[in-house]
Amino acid sequence: MNATAAETVQIITPSQLLTHWQGHRKLTRRVIDAFPEKDFFDYSIGGMRTASQLTLELLAIGAPALKAIVERDEKPYEEAGNALTTKAQFLEQWDKSTAIINDYFPQIPSEDFSKTFNLFGQYNSPIIHSVLYFVDNEIHHRGQMYVYLRGLGIEPPFFWER
Amino acid sequence: MNATAAETVQIITPSQLLTHWQGHRKLTRRVIDAFPEKDFFDYSIGGMRTASQLTLELLAIGAPALKAIVERDEKPYEEAGNALTTKAQFLEQWDKSTAIINDYFPQIPSEDFSKTFNLFGQYNSPIIHSVLYFVDNEIHHRGQMYVYLRGLGIEPPFFWER
Repeated sequence: MNATAAETVQIITPSQLLTHWQGHRKLTRRVIDAFPEKDFFDYSIGGMRTASQLTLELLAIGAPALKAIVERDEKPYEEAGNALTTKAQFLEQWDKSTAIINDYFPQIPSEDFSKTFNLFGQYNSPIIHSVLYFVDNEIHHRGQMYVYLRGLGIEPPFFWER
Repeated sequence: MNATAAETVQIITPSQLLTHWQGHRKLTRRVIDAFPEKDFFDYSIGGMRTASQLTLELLAIGAPALKAIVERDEKPYEEAGNALTTKAQFLEQWDKSTAIINDYFPQIPSEDFSKTFNLFGQYNSPIIHSVLYFVDNEIHHRGQMYVYLRGLGIEPPFFWER
């Protein structure tokens, strides 16, 4: 980012990006909730991970990654494994993550988004790239869960409702 | 966006957002190309649209939408229908769209991203929201195509390779 660019108007502010992400997270919560209990843990297509396994990844990234960025803590990536055994527990963890993200996101100064941080001790990139990756990765896996729901004969929530 | 926010550093510049989107579009092109010719037009899961139908939507949004934004033209949304009948034609149209997006994106002044435009005569929102929606919608449908590929026993490209 050069000085000229830094002096022009922002096309998206940090708080707008947070709102954008949390809008997606609300939709992902509804998609998780749309799964029948058993299918959330058992159903998949073509040897892919189940919806619960995909959600474990999203939970291991979102709040822990954002906390790690704020604290510049390079601790390794770690999923919760078998600690969560019901959909209700996943949703509870999702809501805890929502609060943590709302708490930590505003602690990233605007000028830090272009700074480099080695997330999880292995993904060395500008912080804005990491944050965009969190959102993109969530949309990607949620899109896969949409197919699972359709495969199960269940109508998923509308994509544009946040 | 208030005056204070406008005076702080940008967390993402227009050219970075364009690069981000084109990175996703490169990946989507590889996903399209990974489908066997017949399956691209015939295969789907749970009554969903085929990969070719999903791609028709992406082609009807990307370049036409961006051109419409620059020209403030509220012409209605329109898919190509049966005009494209081979995967090669879809890829050719994809590449034409890439060039159009590269041509038109830099014509949006930074200060216009927060301005409202009624895209396709029906989606009235700040231009930045529309552009983020294009990217998100592409990731969403491409995620679904990943499941189609897995369902067909085909390994999709890595998500993080752009």
